[in-house]
Amino acid sequence: MVTAVPGLAINLATLREQFDFRGSVEACARHGISAVAPWRDQLAKVGVTEVANILRDNGMTATGLCRGGMFTVMPDALDDNKRAVDEAVAIGAQCLVLVVGGLPKDSRDLPKARAMVAEGLAALLPHARAAGMPLAIEPLHPMYAPDRACVNTLSQALDLCDALGEGVGVVLDTYHLWWDPDLAAQIRRAGKGKRILAHHISDFRVPTRDLLNDRGMMGDGVIDFKAFRRMVEKAGYKGPQEVEIFSYEWWHRPGDEVLETCIDRYKRLCRATPR
Amino acid sequence: MVTAVPGLAINLATLREQFDFRGSVEACARHGISAVAPWRDQLAKVGVTEVANILRDNGMTATGLCRGGMFTVMPDALDDNKRAVDEAVAIGAQCLVLVVGGLPKDSRDLPKARAMVAEGLAALLPHARAAGMPLAIEPLHPMYAPDRACVNTLSQALDLCDALGEGVGVVLDTYHLWWDPDLAAQIRRAGKGKRILAHHISDFRVPTRDLLNDRGMMGDGVIDFKAFRRMVEKAGYKGPQEVEIFSYEWWHRPGDEVLETCIDRYKRLCRATPR
Repeated sequence: MVTAVPGLAINLATLREQFDFRGSVEACARHGISAVAPWRDQLAKVGVTEVANILRDNGMTATGLCRGGMFTVMPDALDDNKRAVDEAVAIGAQCLVLVVGGLPKDSRDLPKARAMVAEGLAALLPHARAAGMPLAIEPLHPMYAPDRACVNTLSQALDLCDALGEGVGVVLDTYHLWWDPDLAAQIRRAGKGKRILAHHISDFRVPTRDLLNDRGMMGDGVIDFKAFRRMVEKAGYKGPQEVEIFSYEWWHRPGDEVLETCIDRYKRLCRATPR
Repeated sequence: MVTAVPGLAINLATLREQFDFRGSVEACARHGISAVAPWRDQLAKVGVTEVANILRDNGMTATGLCRGGMFTVMPDALDDNKRAVDEAVAIGAQCLVLVVGGLPKDSRDLPKARAMVAEGLAALLPHARAAGMPLAIEPLHPMYAPDRACVNTLSQALDLCDALGEGVGVVLDTYHLWWDPDLAAQIRRAGKGKRILAHHISDFRVPTRDLLNDRGMMGDGVIDFKAFRRMVEKAGYKGPQEVEIFSYEWWHRPGDEVLETCIDRYKRLCRATPR
Protein backbone atom coordinates (compact mmCIF):
# COMPACT_ATOMS: atom_id res chain seq x y z
CA MET A 1 0.00 0.00 0.00
CA VAL A 2 1.43 3.36 -1.04
CA THR A 3 1.33 6.21 1.48
CA ALA A 4 0.25 9.40 -0.25
CA VAL A 5 2.52 12.41 0.16
CA PRO A 6 0.19 15.36 -0.21
CA GLY A 7 1.89 18.71 -0.74
CA LEU A 8 4.94 17.30 -2.53
CA ALA A 9 5.53 17.50 -6.27
CA ILE A 10 8.50 16.34 -8.33
CA ASN A 11 9.94 18.35 -11.16
CA LEU A 12 10.95 15.62 -13.57
CA ALA A 13 14.35 17.20 -14.27
CA THR A 14 15.23 15.75 -10.88
CA LEU A 15 14.97 12.22 -12.34
CA ARG A 16 16.01 12.88 -15.90
CA GLU A 17 19.06 10.60 -15.88
CA GLN A 18 17.34 7.67 -14.18
CA PHE A 19 14.07 7.25 -16.08
CA ASP A 20 12.33 7.99 -19.32
CA PHE A 21 9.14 10.02 -19.05
CA ARG A 22 6.77 7.15 -18.38
CA GLY A 23 9.24 5.58 -15.98
CA SER A 24 9.61 8.78 -13.98
CA VAL A 25 5.86 9.29 -13.68
CA GLU A 26 5.31 5.70 -12.64
CA ALA A 27 8.13 5.95 -10.09
CA CYS A 28 6.51 9.04 -8.58
CA ALA A 29 3.16 7.24 -8.44
CA ARG A 30 4.79 4.25 -6.72
CA HIS A 31 6.07 6.58 -4.01
CA GLY A 32 2.72 8.23 -3.38
CA ILE A 33 3.43 11.42 -5.26
CA SER A 34 0.57 12.82 -7.31
CA ALA A 35 2.01 15.96 -8.88
CA VAL A 36 4.86 16.35 -11.36
CA ALA A 37 6.25 18.96 -13.72
CA PRO A 38 7.24 17.67 -17.18
CA TRP A 39 9.69 19.32 -19.55
CA ARG A 40 9.11 20.17 -23.16
CA ASP A 41 11.87 17.91 -24.44
CA GLN A 42 9.87 15.05 -22.92
CA LEU A 43 6.75 16.18 -24.79
CA ALA A 44 8.76 16.41 -28.01
CA LYS A 45 10.05 12.88 -27.55
CA VAL A 46 6.97 11.11 -26.23
CA GLY A 47 4.26 13.15 -27.90
CA VAL A 48 1.88 15.58 -26.23
CA THR A 49 -1.13 13.25 -26.32
CA GLU A 50 0.84 10.35 -24.90
CA VAL A 51 2.22 12.57 -22.11
CA ALA A 52 -1.32 13.64 -21.25
CA ASN A 53 -2.40 9.98 -21.22
CA ILE A 54 0.48 8.87 -18.99
CA LEU A 55 -0.23 11.67 -16.54
CA ARG A 56 -3.94 10.84 -16.46
CA ASP A 57 -3.42 7.08 -16.15
CA ASN A 58 -1.18 7.68 -13.12
CA GLY A 59 -3.50 10.22 -11.50
CA MET A 60 -0.91 12.97 -11.83
CA THR A 61 -1.47 16.70 -11.65
CA ALA A 62 0.92 18.67 -13.88
CA THR A 63 2.02 21.55 -11.65
CA GLY A 64 3.64 23.32 -14.56
CA LEU A 65 5.22 22.78 -17.94
CA CYS A 66 8.93 23.60 -18.10
CA ARG A 67 9.68 25.74 -19.91
CA GLY A 68 9.04 28.68 -22.14
CA GLY A 69 10.87 31.99 -22.20
CA MET A 70 14.32 32.67 -23.64
CA PHE A 71 12.97 35.89 -25.11
CA THR A 72 16.43 37.40 -25.46
CA VAL A 73 18.13 34.63 -27.36
CA MET A 74 15.61 32.84 -29.60
CA PRO A 75 14.90 34.38 -32.98
CA ASP A 76 11.41 32.81 -33.04
CA ALA A 77 10.73 33.23 -29.34
CA LEU A 78 7.14 34.39 -29.77
CA ASP A 79 6.11 31.47 -31.98
CA ASP A 80 7.91 28.98 -29.82
CA ASN A 81 6.33 30.35 -26.66
CA LYS A 82 2.88 30.22 -28.22
CA ARG A 83 3.49 26.54 -28.95
CA ALA A 84 4.62 26.09 -25.35
CA VAL A 85 1.36 27.64 -24.14
CA ASP A 86 -0.62 25.26 -26.35
CA GLU A 87 1.36 22.28 -25.09
CA ALA A 88 0.78 23.33 -21.50
CA VAL A 89 -2.97 23.46 -22.23
CA ALA A 90 -2.86 20.08 -23.93
CA ILE A 91 -1.35 18.31 -20.92
CA GLY A 92 -3.50 20.23 -18.43
CA ALA A 93 -0.57 22.02 -16.77
CA GLN A 94 -1.41 24.58 -14.10
CA CYS A 95 1.03 27.10 -15.56
CA LEU A 96 3.77 27.55 -18.12
CA VAL A 97 7.10 28.16 -16.36
CA LEU A 98 9.20 30.86 -18.05
CA VAL A 99 12.97 31.17 -17.83
CA VAL A 100 13.26 34.47 -19.59
CA GLY A 101 16.76 34.35 -21.07
CA GLY A 102 20.00 36.18 -20.31
CA LEU A 103 22.13 38.48 -22.41
CA PRO A 104 21.78 38.23 -26.18
CA LYS A 105 24.85 36.82 -27.94
CA ASP A 106 27.88 39.12 -27.61
CA SER A 107 25.86 41.70 -25.70
CA ARG A 108 26.77 43.26 -22.37
CA ASP A 109 23.63 45.38 -22.26
CA LEU A 110 21.62 43.97 -19.37
CA PRO A 111 19.03 46.78 -19.29
CA LYS A 112 18.34 46.12 -22.97
CA ALA A 113 17.93 42.39 -22.34
CA ARG A 114 15.46 43.20 -19.60
CA ALA A 115 13.49 45.41 -21.95
CA MET A 116 13.40 42.56 -24.48
CA VAL A 117 11.92 40.29 -21.82
CA ALA A 118 9.21 42.80 -20.97
CA GLU A 119 8.35 43.10 -24.67
CA GLY A 120 8.39 39.36 -25.20
CA LEU A 121 6.06 38.77 -22.29
CA ALA A 122 3.67 41.48 -23.46
CA ALA A 123 3.59 39.94 -26.93
CA LEU A 124 2.92 36.44 -25.60
CA LEU A 125 0.33 37.34 -22.99
CA PRO A 126 -2.74 37.71 -25.25
CA HIS A 127 -2.23 34.18 -26.57
CA ALA A 128 -1.79 32.83 -23.04
CA ARG A 129 -4.86 34.65 -21.77
CA ALA A 130 -6.97 33.40 -24.67
CA ALA A 131 -5.79 29.87 -23.88
CA GLY A 132 -6.42 30.32 -20.16
CA MET A 133 -2.82 29.39 -19.39
CA PRO A 134 -1.07 31.38 -16.60
CA LEU A 135 2.49 32.45 -17.38
CA ALA A 136 4.85 31.87 -14.46
CA ILE A 137 7.97 34.04 -14.50
CA GLU A 138 10.78 32.36 -12.62
CA PRO A 139 13.34 34.79 -11.22
CA LEU A 140 16.70 33.01 -11.27
CA HIS A 141 19.68 33.50 -8.97
CA PRO A 142 21.84 36.48 -10.01
CA MET A 143 24.65 34.10 -11.00
CA TYR A 144 22.49 33.11 -14.00
CA ALA A 145 21.94 36.66 -15.24
CA PRO A 146 24.37 36.34 -18.17
CA ASP A 147 23.19 33.11 -19.72
CA ARG A 148 19.79 31.99 -18.41
CA ALA A 149 17.58 34.68 -16.97
CA CYS A 150 18.01 38.41 -16.54
CA VAL A 151 15.06 38.46 -14.14
CA ASN A 152 16.95 37.93 -10.90
CA THR A 153 14.83 39.08 -7.99
CA LEU A 154 11.25 38.53 -6.93
CA SER A 155 10.77 42.29 -6.83
CA GLN A 156 11.81 42.57 -10.47
CA ALA A 157 9.46 39.73 -11.48
CA LEU A 158 6.56 41.32 -9.60
CA ASP A 159 7.25 44.69 -11.25
CA LEU A 160 6.84 42.87 -14.57
CA CYS A 161 3.59 41.32 -13.36
CA ASP A 162 2.29 44.71 -12.27
CA ALA A 163 3.10 46.18 -15.66
CA LEU A 164 1.51 43.26 -17.53
CA GLY A 165 -1.72 42.81 -15.59
CA GLU A 166 -3.67 39.56 -15.33
CA GLY A 167 -2.59 36.15 -16.53
CA VAL A 168 0.99 36.28 -15.29
CA GLY A 169 2.59 35.34 -11.99
CA VAL A 170 5.79 34.01 -10.46
CA VAL A 171 7.58 30.84 -9.44
CA LEU A 172 9.16 31.03 -5.99
CA ASP A 173 12.24 28.83 -6.02
CA THR A 174 14.17 28.60 -2.77
CA TYR A 175 17.49 28.10 -4.56
CA HIS A 176 17.11 31.31 -6.52
CA LEU A 177 15.54 33.52 -3.86
CA TRP A 178 16.69 32.45 -0.40
CA TRP A 179 19.46 35.07 -0.13
CA ASP A 180 17.28 38.13 -0.91
CA PRO A 181 17.24 40.70 1.92
CA ASP A 182 13.84 41.84 0.66
CA LEU A 183 12.37 38.34 0.43
CA ALA A 184 9.74 38.50 3.18
CA ALA A 185 8.25 41.76 1.90
CA GLN A 186 8.24 40.57 -1.69
CA ILE A 187 6.56 37.25 -0.87
CA ARG A 188 3.84 39.21 0.95
CA ARG A 189 3.52 41.42 -2.12
CA ALA A 190 3.27 38.38 -4.39
CA GLY A 191 0.54 36.96 -2.20
CA LYS A 192 -1.49 40.15 -2.18
CA GLY A 193 -1.40 40.26 -5.96
CA LYS A 194 -2.32 36.56 -6.26
CA ARG A 195 0.87 36.09 -8.24
CA ILE A 196 2.28 32.91 -6.69
CA LEU A 197 1.92 30.08 -9.20
CA ALA A 198 4.49 27.57 -7.97
CA HIS A 199 6.93 26.89 -5.14
CA HIS A 200 10.10 25.05 -6.09
CA ILE A 201 12.56 23.65 -3.58
CA SER A 202 16.22 22.66 -3.60
CA ASP A 203 19.09 23.57 -1.31
CA PHE A 204 22.13 25.82 -1.75
CA ARG A 205 25.25 23.80 -0.99
CA VAL A 206 28.46 25.18 0.54
CA PRO A 207 30.65 24.91 -1.36
CA THR A 208 28.67 24.91 -4.58
CA ARG A 209 30.92 22.98 -6.94
CA ASP A 210 29.14 23.76 -10.19
CA LEU A 211 27.06 26.82 -10.94
CA LEU A 212 24.34 24.90 -12.73
CA ASN A 213 24.27 21.27 -11.70
CA ASP A 214 25.15 21.16 -8.03
CA ARG A 215 21.82 21.97 -6.43
CA GLY A 216 21.35 20.37 -3.09
CA MET A 217 18.80 17.99 -1.61
CA MET A 218 16.84 19.81 1.09
CA GLY A 219 18.88 19.70 4.27
CA ASP A 220 22.26 19.42 2.55
CA GLY A 221 22.72 23.18 2.29
CA VAL A 222 21.97 26.43 4.06
CA ILE A 223 18.33 27.15 3.28
CA ASP A 224 15.68 27.29 6.02
CA PHE A 225 12.81 25.62 4.14
CA LYS A 226 10.27 25.77 6.95
CA ALA A 227 10.76 29.52 7.31
CA PHE A 228 10.45 29.99 3.55
CA ARG A 229 7.28 27.90 3.41
CA ARG A 230 5.74 29.75 6.32
CA MET A 231 6.12 33.00 4.36
CA VAL A 232 4.62 31.37 1.27
CA GLU A 233 1.60 29.97 3.12
CA LYS A 234 1.07 33.21 5.01
CA ALA A 235 0.92 34.88 1.60
CA GLY A 236 -1.95 32.57 0.72
CA TYR A 237 -0.30 29.94 -1.46
CA LYS A 238 -1.20 26.37 -0.50
CA GLY A 239 0.01 24.55 -3.61
CA PRO A 240 2.66 21.84 -3.51
CA GLN A 241 6.36 22.23 -2.89
CA GLU A 242 8.03 20.96 -6.04
CA VAL A 243 11.50 19.42 -5.80
CA GLU A 244 13.67 20.57 -8.68
CA ILE A 245 17.26 19.38 -8.27
CA PHE A 246 19.79 19.71 -11.07
CA SER A 247 22.67 17.71 -9.66
CA TYR A 248 25.36 15.47 -11.10
CA GLU A 249 25.49 13.88 -7.68
CA TRP A 250 21.79 13.02 -7.41
CA TRP A 251 21.45 12.08 -11.07
CA HIS A 252 23.95 9.33 -10.35
CA ARG A 253 21.88 7.78 -7.57
CA PRO A 254 19.06 5.30 -8.14
CA GLY A 255 15.77 7.03 -8.86
CA ASP A 256 13.90 5.29 -6.07
CA GLU A 257 16.53 6.37 -3.56
CA VAL A 258 16.22 9.96 -4.80
CA LEU A 259 12.46 9.86 -4.37
CA GLU A 260 12.67 8.30 -0.91
CA THR A 261 15.12 11.00 0.12
CA CYS A 262 12.93 13.77 -1.32
CA ILE A 263 9.95 12.47 0.67
CA ASP A 264 11.89 12.07 3.89
CA ARG A 265 13.49 15.50 3.69
CA TYR A 266 10.24 17.14 2.64
CA LYS A 267 8.41 15.68 5.62
CA ARG A 268 11.10 16.54 8.13
CA LEU A 269 12.44 19.86 6.89
CA CYS A 270 10.06 21.61 4.52
CA ARG A 271 6.51 21.62 5.84
CA ALA A 272 5.57 24.84 7.58
CA THR A 273 3.61 23.03 10.25
CA PRO A 274 3.90 19.42 11.45
CA ARG A 275 1.02 17.19 10.43
CA MET B 1 60.42 56.28 -18.48
CA VAL B 2 57.23 55.04 -16.87
CA THR B 3 53.88 56.29 -18.17
CA ALA B 4 51.61 57.07 -15.25
CA VAL B 5 48.20 55.43 -15.25
CA PRO B 6 46.02 57.81 -13.29
CA GLY B 7 42.70 56.43 -12.16
CA LEU B 8 43.85 52.82 -11.88
CA ALA B 9 44.58 51.04 -8.61
CA ILE B 10 45.61 47.45 -7.98
CA ASN B 11 44.23 45.39 -5.17
CA LEU B 12 47.24 43.31 -4.20
CA ALA B 13 45.24 40.09 -3.99
CA THR B 14 45.46 40.24 -7.79
CA LEU B 15 49.22 39.59 -7.57
CA ARG B 16 49.39 37.49 -4.43
CA GLU B 17 50.87 34.40 -6.06
CA GLN B 18 53.49 36.24 -8.09
CA PHE B 19 55.12 38.61 -5.61
CA ASP B 20 55.70 39.24 -1.95
CA PHE B 21 54.40 42.55 -0.62
CA ARG B 22 57.42 44.67 -1.53
CA GLY B 23 57.67 42.98 -4.90
CA SER B 24 54.03 43.66 -5.73
CA VAL B 25 54.26 47.33 -4.77
CA GLU B 26 57.46 47.79 -6.77
CA ALA B 27 55.91 46.03 -9.76
CA CYS B 28 52.94 48.39 -9.64
CA ALA B 29 55.29 51.37 -9.43
CA ARG B 30 57.27 50.07 -12.42
CA HIS B 31 54.06 50.04 -14.44
CA GLY B 32 53.04 53.58 -13.52
CA ILE B 33 50.42 52.66 -10.96
CA SER B 34 50.32 54.81 -7.85
CA ALA B 35 47.51 53.28 -5.80
CA VAL B 36 47.23 49.84 -4.24
CA ALA B 37 45.15 48.04 -1.63
CA PRO B 38 47.13 45.83 0.78
CA TRP B 39 45.74 42.93 2.79
CA ARG B 40 46.06 42.36 6.49
CA ASP B 41 47.96 39.10 6.10
CA GLN B 42 50.63 41.15 4.33
CA LEU B 43 50.75 43.57 7.26
CA ALA B 44 51.03 40.65 9.68
CA LYS B 45 53.92 39.19 7.72
CA VAL B 46 55.88 42.31 6.79
CA GLY B 47 55.02 44.53 9.74
CA VAL B 48 52.78 47.59 9.73
CA THR B 49 55.61 50.11 9.86
CA GLU B 50 57.50 48.41 7.06
CA VAL B 51 54.36 48.29 4.92
CA ALA B 52 53.88 52.01 5.49
CA ASN B 53 57.51 52.62 4.54
CA ILE B 54 57.31 50.56 1.36
CA LEU B 55 54.14 52.35 0.29
CA ARG B 56 55.69 55.77 0.98
CA ASP B 57 59.01 54.95 -0.70
CA ASN B 58 57.12 53.94 -3.84
CA GLY B 59 54.79 56.92 -3.82
CA MET B 60 51.75 54.70 -3.32
CA THR B 61 48.33 55.70 -2.08
CA ALA B 62 46.61 52.95 -0.09
CA THR B 63 43.06 52.99 -1.44
CA GLY B 64 41.87 50.71 1.32
CA LEU B 65 42.98 48.03 3.73
CA CYS B 66 41.47 44.60 3.10
CA ARG B 67 39.82 43.54 5.24
CA GLY B 68 37.84 43.72 8.42
CA GLY B 69 34.37 42.37 9.06
CA MET B 70 33.40 38.72 9.61
CA PHE B 71 31.09 39.87 12.40
CA THR B 72 29.03 36.68 12.24
CA VAL B 73 31.80 34.13 12.55
CA MET B 74 34.66 35.55 14.67
CA PRO B 75 34.29 35.26 18.44
CA ASP B 76 36.54 38.32 18.94
CA ALA B 77 35.23 40.24 15.94
CA LEU B 78 35.04 43.59 17.73
CA ASP B 79 38.61 43.50 19.03
CA ASP B 80 39.95 42.25 15.74
CA ASN B 81 38.11 44.93 13.80
CA LYS B 82 39.41 47.64 16.13
CA ARG B 83 42.93 46.40 15.38
CA ALA B 84 42.09 46.50 11.68
CA VAL B 85 41.00 50.13 12.02
CA ASP B 86 44.26 50.98 13.76
CA GLU B 87 46.28 49.21 11.08
CA ALA B 88 44.41 51.08 8.38
CA VAL B 89 45.29 54.34 10.11
CA ALA B 90 48.92 53.30 10.48
CA ILE B 91 49.39 52.68 6.77
CA GLY B 92 47.36 55.75 5.77
CA ALA B 93 44.61 53.76 4.05
CA GLN B 94 41.65 55.71 2.75
CA CYS B 95 39.16 53.24 4.21
CA LEU B 96 38.88 49.87 5.90
CA VAL B 97 37.10 47.41 3.59
CA LEU B 98 34.61 45.19 5.41
CA VAL B 99 33.46 41.76 4.27
CA VAL B 100 30.80 41.27 6.87
CA GLY B 101 30.58 37.49 7.19
CA GLY B 102 27.96 34.92 6.19
CA LEU B 103 25.94 32.48 8.26
CA PRO B 104 27.33 31.53 11.67
CA LYS B 105 28.48 27.91 11.92
CA ASP B 106 25.59 25.44 11.54
CA SER B 107 23.06 28.26 11.26
CA ARG B 108 20.47 28.70 8.52
CA ASP B 109 19.13 31.91 10.00
CA LEU B 110 20.06 34.59 7.49
CA PRO B 111 17.97 37.37 9.08
CA LYS B 112 19.76 36.71 12.37
CA ALA B 113 23.17 36.87 10.67
CA ARG B 114 22.18 40.20 9.17
CA ALA B 115 21.17 41.52 12.58
CA MET B 116 24.56 40.43 13.93
CA VAL B 117 26.26 42.43 11.19
CA ALA B 118 24.27 45.55 12.04
CA GLU B 119 25.18 45.14 15.70
CA GLY B 120 28.85 44.51 14.93
CA LEU B 121 29.07 47.61 12.76
CA ALA B 122 27.38 49.76 15.39
CA ALA B 123 29.80 48.51 18.03
CA LEU B 124 32.85 49.18 15.84
CA LEU B 125 31.83 52.57 14.52
CA PRO B 126 32.76 54.76 17.55
CA HIS B 127 36.34 53.44 17.40
CA ALA B 128 36.52 54.04 13.66
CA ARG B 129 35.11 57.54 13.98
CA ALA B 130 37.55 58.41 16.75
CA ALA B 131 40.36 57.17 14.53
CA GLY B 132 39.05 59.06 11.51
CA MET B 133 38.92 55.83 9.49
CA PRO B 134 35.91 55.34 7.17
CA LEU B 135 34.36 51.88 7.23
CA ALA B 136 33.59 50.58 3.75
CA ILE B 137 30.90 47.89 3.64
CA GLU B 138 31.34 45.68 0.59
CA PRO B 139 28.13 44.03 -0.57
CA LEU B 140 29.10 40.67 -2.07
CA HIS B 141 27.36 38.71 -4.81
CA PRO B 142 24.41 36.66 -3.49
CA MET B 143 26.32 33.44 -4.18
CA TYR B 144 28.55 34.35 -1.21
CA ALA B 145 25.68 34.85 1.25
CA PRO B 146 26.29 31.57 3.10
CA ASP B 147 30.00 31.79 3.74
CA ARG B 148 31.40 35.28 3.14
CA ALA B 149 28.95 38.14 3.38
CA CYS B 150 25.24 38.29 4.11
CA VAL B 151 25.15 41.87 2.79
CA ASN B 152 24.32 41.12 -0.83
CA THR B 153 22.89 44.20 -2.47
CA LEU B 154 23.87 47.84 -2.61
CA SER B 155 20.44 48.75 -1.31
CA GLN B 156 20.97 46.60 1.77
CA ALA B 157 24.41 48.13 2.40
CA LEU B 158 23.01 51.66 2.05
CA ASP B 159 20.18 50.84 4.46
CA LEU B 160 22.89 49.92 6.97
CA CYS B 161 24.71 53.18 6.27
CA ASP B 162 21.50 55.15 6.78
CA ALA B 163 20.92 53.43 10.10
CA LEU B 164 24.51 53.98 11.26
CA GLY B 165 25.07 57.59 10.26
CA GLU B 166 28.45 59.13 9.50
CA GLY B 167 31.75 57.33 9.13
CA VAL B 168 30.52 54.42 7.04
CA GLY B 169 30.12 53.91 3.31
CA VAL B 170 30.26 51.27 0.60
CA VAL B 171 32.56 49.57 -1.89
CA LEU B 172 31.07 49.28 -5.37
CA ASP B 173 32.49 46.13 -6.94
CA THR B 174 31.37 45.39 -10.48
CA TYR B 175 31.64 41.63 -9.96
CA HIS B 176 29.26 41.69 -7.03
CA LEU B 177 26.78 44.29 -8.24
CA TRP B 178 26.56 44.25 -12.04
CA TRP B 179 23.44 42.05 -12.17
CA ASP B 180 21.27 44.18 -9.85
CA PRO B 181 18.08 45.45 -11.53
CA ASP B 182 18.09 48.35 -9.06
CA LEU B 183 21.75 49.25 -9.61
CA ALA B 184 21.39 52.65 -11.29
CA ALA B 185 19.01 53.99 -8.63
CA GLN B 186 21.14 52.65 -5.78
CA ILE B 187 24.38 54.13 -7.16
CA ARG B 188 22.60 57.48 -7.38
CA ARG B 189 21.47 57.02 -3.79
CA ALA B 190 25.01 56.15 -2.70
CA GLY B 191 26.31 59.28 -4.37
CA LYS B 192 23.75 61.55 -2.75
CA GLY B 193 24.68 60.21 0.66
CA LYS B 194 28.43 60.56 -0.05
CA ARG B 195 28.74 56.86 0.67
CA ILE B 196 30.97 55.69 -2.18
CA LEU B 197 34.41 54.88 -0.77
CA ALA B 198 35.86 52.59 -3.43
CA HIS B 199 35.17 51.17 -6.89
CA HIS B 200 36.49 47.68 -7.54
CA ILE B 201 36.57 46.06 -10.97
CA SER B 202 36.73 42.52 -12.30
CA ASP B 203 34.62 40.70 -14.86
CA PHE B 204 31.99 37.96 -14.58
CA ARG B 205 33.01 35.06 -16.81
CA VAL B 206 30.60 32.72 -18.63
CA PRO B 207 30.92 30.01 -17.62
CA THR B 208 32.24 30.78 -14.15
CA ARG B 209 34.23 27.66 -13.31
CA ASP B 210 34.79 28.34 -9.63
CA LEU B 211 32.58 30.37 -7.34
CA LEU B 212 35.46 32.12 -5.60
CA ASN B 213 38.58 32.12 -7.73
CA ASP B 214 37.46 32.51 -11.32
CA ARG B 215 36.97 36.24 -11.56
CA GLY B 216 37.63 37.63 -14.96
CA MET B 217 39.98 40.23 -16.36
CA MET B 218 37.95 43.17 -17.63
CA GLY B 219 36.72 42.31 -21.11
CA ASP B 220 36.75 38.55 -20.60
CA GLY B 221 33.20 38.46 -19.25
CA VAL B 222 29.83 40.12 -19.55
CA ILE B 223 30.15 43.37 -17.58
CA ASP B 224 29.81 46.76 -19.25
CA PHE B 225 32.51 48.62 -17.31
CA LYS B 226 32.12 51.96 -19.07
CA ALA B 227 28.41 52.04 -18.28
CA PHE B 228 29.08 51.13 -14.66
CA ARG B 229 31.75 53.82 -14.34
CA ARG B 230 29.52 56.44 -15.91
CA MET B 231 26.97 55.80 -13.18
CA VAL B 232 29.68 55.99 -10.52
CA GLU B 233 31.12 59.27 -11.79
CA LYS B 234 27.67 60.77 -12.26
CA ALA B 235 27.09 59.96 -8.59
CA GLY B 236 30.11 62.10 -7.76
CA TYR B 237 32.84 59.53 -7.15
CA LYS B 238 36.10 60.27 -8.96
CA GLY B 239 38.43 57.90 -7.10
CA PRO B 240 40.37 55.15 -8.83
CA GLN B 241 39.04 51.93 -10.30
CA GLU B 242 40.74 49.16 -8.37
CA VAL B 243 41.38 45.83 -10.06
CA GLU B 244 40.65 42.96 -7.71
CA ILE B 245 40.89 39.60 -9.47
CA PHE B 246 40.83 36.34 -7.56
CA SER B 247 41.68 33.89 -10.31
CA TYR B 248 43.61 30.64 -10.51
CA GLU B 249 44.12 31.48 -14.16
CA TRP B 250 45.64 34.93 -13.65
CA TRP B 251 47.61 33.93 -10.56
CA HIS B 252 49.45 31.52 -12.84
CA ARG B 253 50.56 34.20 -15.27
CA PRO B 254 53.64 36.38 -14.80
CA GLY B 255 52.92 39.43 -12.64
CA ASP B 256 54.17 41.90 -15.22
CA GLU B 257 51.88 40.39 -17.85
CA VAL B 258 48.95 40.67 -15.45
CA LEU B 259 49.71 44.33 -14.81
CA GLU B 260 50.16 45.11 -18.51
CA THR B 261 46.83 43.45 -19.22
CA CYS B 262 45.11 45.35 -16.40
CA ILE B 263 46.40 48.64 -17.77
CA ASP B 264 45.45 47.86 -21.36
CA ARG B 265 41.95 46.68 -20.48
CA TYR B 266 41.42 49.56 -18.08
CA LYS B 267 42.33 52.11 -20.73
CA ARG B 268 40.26 50.53 -23.47
CA LEU B 269 37.22 49.24 -21.60
CA CYS B 270 36.75 50.88 -18.22
CA ARG B 271 37.12 54.64 -18.42
CA ALA B 272 33.82 56.47 -18.64
CA THR B 273 35.20 58.99 -21.10
CA PRO B 274 38.20 58.71 -23.43
CA ARG B 275 41.19 60.81 -22.43
